[in-house]
Amino acid sequence: MAVYTQLSAEVLADLIAQYDVGELVSAKGIAEGVSNSNWLVETTGSEANGKRFILTMYERRIDISELPFFLDLLDHLAAQGCPVPRTIHDRSGASSRMLQGKAVALIEFLPGVSVDHPTPQQAHAVGRVLAEMHESAQDFPGTRANDLDPHASAHVLAECGDQALAAIDGALPAVVPIAQEVADAWPADLPTSIIHSDLFPDNVLMLGNTVSALIDFYFACNDAMAYDLAVTHAAWSFTGDGHTYRPEVGQALVEGYESVRKLSEEERAALPLLAQGATLRFVSSRAQDWIDTPADALVTKKDPMDFVRRLEFYRREGKDVFAA
Amino acid sequence: MAVYTQLSAEVLADLIAQYDVGELVSAKGIAEGVSNSNWLVETTGSEANGKRFILTMYERRIDISELPFFLDLLDHLAAQGCPVPRTIHDRSGASSRMLQGKAVALIEFLPGVSVDHPTPQQAHAVGRVLAEMHESAQDFPGTRANDLDPHASAHVLAECGDQALAAIDGALPAVVPIAQEVADAWPADLPTSIIHSDLFPDNVLMLGNTVSALIDFYFACNDAMAYDLAVTHAAWSFTGDGHTYRPEVGQALVEGYESVRKLSEEERAALPLLAQGATLRFVSSRAQDWIDTPADALVTKKDPMDFVRRLEFYRREGKDVFAA
Repeated sequence: MAVYTQLSAEVLADLIAQYDVGELVSAKGIAEGVSNSNWLVETTGSEANGKRFILTMYERRIDISELPFFLDLLDHLAAQGCPVPRTIHDRSGASSRMLQGKAVALIEFLPGVSVDHPTPQQAHAVGRVLAEMHESAQDFPGTRANDLDPHASAHVLAECGDQALAAIDGALPAVVPIAQEVADAWPADLPTSIIHSDLFPDNVLMLGNTVSALIDFYFACNDAMAYDLAVTHAAWSFTGDGHTYRPEVGQALVEGYESVRKLSEEERAALPLLAQGATLRFVSSRAQDWIDTPADALVTKKDPMDFVRRLEFYRREGKDVFAA
Repeated sequence: MAVYTQLSAEVLADLIAQYDVGELVSAKGIAEGVSNSNWLVETTGSEANGKRFILTMYERRIDISELPFFLDLLDHLAAQGCPVPRTIHDRSGASSRMLQGKAVALIEFLPGVSVDHPTPQQAHAVGRVLAEMHESAQDFPGTRANDLDPHASAHVLAECGDQALAAIDGALPAVVPIAQEVADAWPADLPTSIIHSDLFPDNVLMLGNTVSALIDFYFACNDAMAYDLAVTHAAWSFTGDGHTYRPEVGQALVEGYESVRKLSEEERAALPLLAQGATLRFVSSRAQDWIDTPADALVTKKDPMDFVRRLEFYRREGKDVFAA
């Protein structure tokens, strides 16, 4: 959550002139995105492209060779009517440009705010839009492997080592064999599409009970659609610390999803395991970040236990929660 | 440059409902302000108040008892036609509210961008607006002492100690007696108004060659108007490191100022000393920050030498630069 690069008004104005969007009127660095710099940009506008945009500069983590996948996906989904921001192409037709040695993209600004305490109505709307996105992405030609699958999670946790994990929380080492068990049991034949795979509430913009935008597709990949629903379930249906499951929210999410795309029996039966895999992804990445982050760093470490609690919940009650 | 506090959409929506601005549509934390959290907020709008705002949460440094001075000043200047954002008052008429134990204010959003490499035309426009602001503030009833005057700068530098100063740069200890000399010679009888006293390029928003907004008045105080011009001269007329004076920019700034408000002979004669005092303010605050900031902190320290070079320039050439 930072702006890593300073861009002068002069540089920004030159960049904006490469697009059919009118002249630069305002640019504010915004505190969004974990590994990119973002600006909320206003211009005098054009008929074709409007006048408000998010300018993203890709700082790290993202392999620039993958940018066309992410940006083309936005355009594909937006063209199909999904509430995702389309990219603005420059006058030469390119969806990204290089600026000071880094890739940048100008992306449509969409209104809406991220909710912290979703209501069942909001969760229902998110489920519906997620299913619509899965269906709209079926004929997207790009492909990208999921490099954060349960095998990767199990590997990361094993690499952390029991001692380092125990130093975070005494309950963490017990998760290592569970992660391997989940990876070993992972289903290989569920129906796939492009999935968002990181649809936390802060990646959804809402206006009241309506989803105005899904954003931050930088973990999107080809994988099981039911796994995406499981990630979203784990991200939306609990209090932040994972202590309390909110059954009315979880249920509304699945109902919203099924109002557009009915789950098969295999998918529904797999959900308890898929949800465990979803929690393990965040347990493993948070544990690794915790270990890699110096004790005196000025960043807030995210507690992996928030998702261990969800893992335990799904192991204990997943069958009931996801029963038809 | 950070957002220190997270506010949920629900909390923001409740806050916005206290104002006649319509409903919350969007809120983005913006990377502006050194010691406050700021959000760019969009609403459905109202006839009276428009639909885009900066929400500021006062985190620290600012004494809340001084907030009425700053906010009333904005309203006073805006009412007189100065390009400063007015404050939006809540339904009870208050210009600030408390939220989660901290003061917040909703302030008009004004367009424009901060230039890094001002042209003479832009400097001329800034000088003109600065003089207009000084004249418009003449009848503002509030008062606030300048607690960063040259006596304070001399005191801060003396307190740093030669050893700590020399550890930053070998040339810094020699500045301590100069700071005392400047404080001792400081003129007491120049015409005063409310001054901005921190009008760096990033506190001015421009659209082309027009000043669209002066912002960040949180150092405003009663003091000599010519001192404010000197601060602005030191902030605008050099390359960032202070190595190179840009005479066409400095001259345009003073000419723009005088196109609205003619300097008296005493003011003009005092400018070389006032400019030295201006540089010493930033030398002293940067030296102190440098010493107070742990070596491994993740913040970019600002080099006090950038302003020592300006100080040396004004001592050497100030008389010529500011000659009528």
